[in-house]
Parts: sequence; C-alpha cells; structure tokens
Amino acid sequence: MAILVVGSIALDTIETPFGKREDILGGSATYFSYAASFFDKVCLVGVVGEDFPQEHIDLLKSRWINTEGLQVIKGKTFRWIGSYEGDMDIATTHSTCLNVFETFQPIIPKKYRDLDIVFLANIDPDLQIGVLSQVNKPRLTICDTMNLWISIKKDSLTKLLGMVDIAVMNEGEARMYANTPNLIKAARHVLKQGPKYVVIKKGENGAMIMSDQFFFTMPGFPIEDVRDPTGAGDTFAGGFVGYLSKSGKVDKASLKKALVYGSVMAAFNVEDFSLDRMKRLDDREIEDRYLEYVNLTNFHF
Amino acid sequence: MAILVVGSIALDTIETPFGKREDILGGSATYFSYAASFFDKVCLVGVVGEDFPQEHIDLLKSRWINTEGLQVIKGKTFRWIGSYEGDMDIATTHSTCLNVFETFQPIIPKKYRDLDIVFLANIDPDLQIGVLSQVNKPRLTICDTMNLWISIKKDSLTKLLGMVDIAVMNEGEARMYANTPNLIKAARHVLKQGPKYVVIKKGENGAMIMSDQFFFTMPGFPIEDVRDPTGAGDTFAGGFVGYLSKSGKVDKASLKKALVYGSVMAAFNVEDFSLDRMKRLDDREIEDRYLEYVNLTNFHF
Repeated sequence: MAILVVGSIALDTIETPFGKREDILGGSATYFSYAASFFDKVCLVGVVGEDFPQEHIDLLKSRWINTEGLQVIKGKTFRWIGSYEGDMDIATTHSTCLNVFETFQPIIPKKYRDLDIVFLANIDPDLQIGVLSQVNKPRLTICDTMNLWISIKKDSLTKLLGMVDIAVMNEGEARMYANTPNLIKAARHVLKQGPKYVVIKKGENGAMIMSDQFFFTMPGFPIEDVRDPTGAGDTFAGGFVGYLSKSGKVDKASLKKALVYGSVMAAFNVEDFSLDRMKRLDDREIEDRYLEYVNLTNFHF
Repeated sequence: MAILVVGSIALDTIETPFGKREDILGGSATYFSYAASFFDKVCLVGVVGEDFPQEHIDLLKSRWINTEGLQVIKGKTFRWIGSYEGDMDIATTHSTCLNVFETFQPIIPKKYRDLDIVFLANIDPDLQIGVLSQVNKPRLTICDTMNLWISIKKDSLTKLLGMVDIAVMNEGEARMYANTPNLIKAARHVLKQGPKYVVIKKGENGAMIMSDQFFFTMPGFPIEDVRDPTGAGDTFAGGFVGYLSKSGKVDKASLKKALVYGSVMAAFNVEDFSLDRMKRLDDREIEDRYLEYVNLTNFHF
C-alpha cells in the first residue's frame, strides 16, 4: 500500500534543557513522513516558502518520500518557536508564524488520489475535510488534531471524526474534547462521533487503542536521554500508520503491532533534535528496539 | 511463606467527585494487608486508639490476617482528612492528626520475627529501620515511603534503602528523591543506594521494576469508574508482595507477574471508597481480571 499525508512543514526554533536549535526542520507532516518511510511509500502534501532549504527536500527524497505534492510558494515557511523544561512534558509556545501556511489549501495531485491510506496530520479540521473530498475512497483514513482546533473549531473536528476510520489524539486532547478527566470515558466519547478506532497517545506512558469491541494498552518505551520531544506524536503516528500500510491489514494483531512500532519510532525521535536521530536510523535498529520492547513488556516468559 | 507488614492504620475522611465518607477504614498497612491476604498469610503490626471500631479488626481477621501485633492503646486513632478533584491524580490533605501514631514504636511479636517476607509500609524511615533490627534475616525485605520523608528524613531513608531488597516508590517520590525529571535516571539513582530492585508506581499509567540487569514496564489496568484512589499504592504493594509470597520465588518471572497482580488489585481498590470494593472481591474475580489484563496488553496474538 502507500500513504498520502497532508500536514504542516515547519522551521522550528527549540530550546530544551539540552540546548537550543534555530530554524530546524519540523512540522507534523515532516515527522510523520520520515518515520512512515521506514515502512512503506509516502506521498507528501504541504506547503513551504521560498526560504525553505533545498537540503530538507533532498532529505525527504532520500527516504523515497514523494514530494510532488509539496507546494513551494512565495513567502516564508511556517515557523514555530517553543521550549521545554523539567520533564519536557509540555511545550511552551513562544511564537507561531503561520506565514505561507496561513492561506494553505491542500491540493491533492491526481496521482495521489487513489492511494490506499490517507493520514491527515494536524491542521485545521476544515482543511482535513477538504482533503477527504479530493480522494477516491481510500481503504483507511486516519486523522490527528490539536488542542487549538478543539477550542476554536470543535464542530468541524466533530464532523471530521465522523468521516475517518481512526482518530489519533494525545491524552490531553481526548480529555479536553470529551470534557472528562477519565481517559477511558474520553475514548468512548470520541468513538461515539464515528471513527471505528481511537488511538490515545500518552507520551512517555505509551498509548492505547479502542474500538467498540477491542481495547489494547501499552507502556511507552523507556528513554533515559530525552533531548527534544518535538514531533514525538507525529513520529508515533508515522510508525503506526507506516506499519499498518506495510502489513496490508487493519486487523487487531496489526493494530497492536502498529502501536508498538509507533512507540518505538517516537522513542528514537526524542533522542535528538529535529529528525537528527531518525537520520541516523536503520531498519535493523528498529527491529532490535521492537524486540527489546517485547522483552521489556512481556510477562509470559 | 508469610508476610510481616508494619505501617499505619487510620480512620480517613475523604471527599472525591463521587461523594464524601467520614472516619472510614484506611492506612497503608490496612490496604496492604487486605490486598495481600488474597495471596498468602499476613501478620500485621500497627497501632490504633481505643476509638477504633472492633468491626474493622473483625474485618481483618475475617481475611485470616493475624492481628496479634496490633497495639490498641489509650487515645485516638490516626486520622487523615483529604480530598481529590478532577482526574483524582493528587490528594489534597486537609488535616493529619497522628494521635496514637505520634509515639508509635513498632514492637514485633516474637512469633513474627522469623517470617520470610517483611513489608515496611510507609512510616518514618527510622521506625522502618527499627523493624529490620527486630527480625531474623527475612528472605525478602521491601519498603515503601512518601514525599514527607524525602523532605525531612532523606538520610534515614537513604540508610533504609541500603538495607532492603526492594524499594517501592511512586513516580513523584522517585523523581523527588533522585532530583531528576527522568524516571529511568531516577530509578537508577535509587538502585545505587543499595536495593536489588526498585518498583516505580505510576498510578493509572501502571508500573515498572528495575534492577541492574533487568527491566520490566507495564501499563495500568484501565478503569472507567475511579471513585476513590486512596490506598491504591498500598493495595498495589499488597498484590505485588502477596503474589511473591505465594509463588515462593523472587525470580524475574515472579516479579513481573507480581507487578501485574499489584496493578489488578489496585484497579479493584479504586472502584470504591475504603476497602469496600475489596470486601466484595473473590479469588475468581482476581484471576479473571488478570486474564483480562493479559488480553488487553498482549500484542503477540
């Protein structure tokens, strides 16, 4: 199968207890694409400005990510400035300059419209809905979101949830959307809006997936040296959707393993700034960490 | 094997979003004993005042918990008044009246001194050390603690950590003790003080156990109706130590399963106030929930 992803591409300036980096490659679609590319073919739709370094496009291409849907338009690339402190659980946003992203209208190239899997990375839910109207009955649709859209575009988000197969949220977003502190209740509430499955990301505490008939929960892969958590959720989604695409199935067994691969990929990503750790990553390391995860969590032997 | 537990016995007044209860049975040793009693024989050492209802003692006896080490002395029983809001993650203490607990000196009855397993529930670390000086080379010693002792008796706690086989802490305490936000680093720091294993409890996010050579992590059992989290950590310890005692082994396989049983027992406990849910519990339900946990977390089939 192959994956269409639509989302943000950004230049981030990030400060963590481990240092500061300026104008480094970021964005939801970027992290997702790069992580998913270890599993299957990815076609990227997004927008950048004229200032976007060619080396970043070359980097994506080096992973066989199709960038024909990447619009390069007049103006500056989307920029985010943020920082993390202490356990780096929560990002503090210092500035968000949408720039070319402000008027972004995703245009799905004709050759992308029949792809099997569509991942709607975190952007305005109205734009996510617009993407779904351009594609031809994908086998699997997945959306992510963020707290901003729950605050200012909840109706659009609810409409979107009724149109996708899998909703991916982090625990804070799920609680906020469902207006309940209990995560199981929150997940059930999201499911009521229409998706077959809801995936709740819990950062260092792992993730869970729920449907009406099925529930799976898992701890996070323990990481001693977290340097920059930016993109962890998108990288998780990249591993999750990437594995589903590779496996060609959306059954319980595949969904569970996909969640583990998501956690494994996110665990690599947080070990360095931007995509730096993933740039050094190979398939063997992913398999090794998957097996390490099995070993760390299996209580049957 | 059999377990000696020394800790607090309290009358709690608790308010959660699900109601308020006054002077209900609580205390670290109480929750621990009751949970552990589903697995093996428990001998309890603690102190209560003359106001302590006989029905509570009868309740413990009904689970074959040996209460010969329970001192009933002049004065009032230890009382705690607390409340929880929102996701009930953190207790707000409104009042702590130590009463008879203020001058408590644990005296280990002669017939308890050769027990195989000693669990030092959360009390002053100097008293915990005093207990260890009264027993004859138990096969396994485990201690719990709380943030108060990390603040005001860190040296005594560190000394205690050098004397026990397993240290049990919650994640906040581990981070506080080790002065690092990273839980893996915190666990390593605790291990450096001497215990063979450290168990980190993470509330609804499960638990982990670490030694120099071994690491196991697990998600929490998902609970939709949390009514009162009081005693969850002690109940967890009761299931954990209880299973170790029953299995008669302290190898990796037993430690992993023990952690799962701890999580299962804690998940029952939070479903009602005081020990009310555990009072209605039977062995079959525990085994059913263990199997449900296997089903919820296993990604191999």
